Amino acid sequence: MKSYRQELWFNLPARMEFLNITPQVAECVKSSGVREGMCLVNAMHITASVFINDDEPGLLNDYKKWLEELAPFDPSPERYHHNRTGEDNADAHHKRQIMGREVVVAITEGKLDFGPWEQIFYGEFDGRRKKRVLVKVIGE
Amino acid sequence: MKSYRQELWFNLPARMEFLNITPQVAECVKSSGVREGMCLVNAMHITASVFINDDEPGLLNDYKKWLEELAPFDPSPERYHHNRTGEDNADAHHKRQIMGREVVVAITEGKLDFGPWEQIFYGEFDGRRKKRVLVKVIGE
Amino acid sequence: MKSYRQELWFNLPARMEFLNITPQVAECVKSSGVREGMCLVNAMHITASVFINDDEPGLLNDYKKWLEELAPFDPSPERYHHNRTGEDNADAHHKRQIMGREVVVAITEGKLDFGPWEQIFYGEFDGRRKKRVLVKVIGE
Repeated sequence: MKSYRQELWFNLPARMEFLNITPQVAECVKSSGVREGMCLVNAMHITASVFINDDEPGLLNDYKKWLEELAPFDPSPERYHHNRTGEDNADAHHKRQIMGREVVVAITEGKLDFGPWEQIFYGEFDGRRKKRVLVKVIGE
Repeated sequence: MKSYRQELWFNLPARMEFLNITPQVAECVKSSGVREGMCLVNAMHITASVFINDDEPGLLNDYKKWLEELAPFDPSPERYHHNRTGEDNADAHHKRQIMGREVVVAITEGKLDFGPWEQIFYGEFDGRRKKRVLVKVIGE
Repeated sequence: MKSYRQELWFNLPARMEFLNITPQVAECVKSSGVREGMCLVNAMHITASVFINDDEPGLLNDYKKWLEELAPFDPSPERYHHNRTGEDNADAHHKRQIMGREVVVAITEGKLDFGPWEQIFYGEFDGRRKKRVLVKVIGE
């Protein structure tokens, strides 16, 4: 069994933003030399997500609006107890749960085994600092 | 290490519907010959989900009502920017994020390693056309 | 390829509660002897979750309040059809979908490959009885 590990680093300039990281993940799969196996891609931070959906700017805008409705940014300690610790990012911990921590993608014949529109996104909910994603590939 | 790949195709007659696909996935595990490993089951479309929960008709009805409250169907371009592209399925992209893209199930002694009530569902949020699920098994 | 399987049992005294199970999962990884691979941790019950986030009491309190808003406990059969079966836990089936069934964690050099604040939680939404989590490790 082969295994491969790579960290991808990001520093997004907005509090909330989505970035298509499919090319970087595909590069990891290529570097791994794995032909048949699985690829785990997960946020290493707990105020960020990795998810798969459509690379359509209108949809990504809709997600931002929707997540803001479901878990509004509010730095005050009244709405979120977490912000009593001096943090202001409790909303980001909630948004991340909706969008998910990780995806697992099949690798078939050396490539990400995707449907027609699947793209991997890094979802940032507390940006403006360096954060990272883990790519782990196993198989043979 | 063994690996196995199978696509399951569906064409559900409603916009939103849930289908228990546990028998088909169990058949894939059997065909794979894997005794110890992992089974990934994921929607290959971005307006559909694969999730695990209870096969109880009342609950599935509850999920439909709840998802419609969280992300209502609205083909107009006002609520969802995504629908400015000519699509009418922005709500489906949101519902899918709540219910998830994929499940990973352990395989033990050649079988899906399940608790007493776990069943695998295909969740369709933009149906009335052919769509598919990927089953990938690795192990030995 | 090596594989390892362990069930973790819990009996939480509240209807809704979160428990940090990282030490038990880390012990499973150690026992597995796997140096490079993947670790699946999933709830075996459909009214419970396994998820990764921050071990901060204020945040866990925020999650409880938020989940109660998104899917309120209501034993009556009016809100949830599922409760017409005699059950009172339909809300728990909804909360579990928000927080997720499972996590997959990379194993690198014999350890859970985590970012700085990642901790694995068991999320109970219908407690006061014995329930279990499955840990499955594959790799070599």
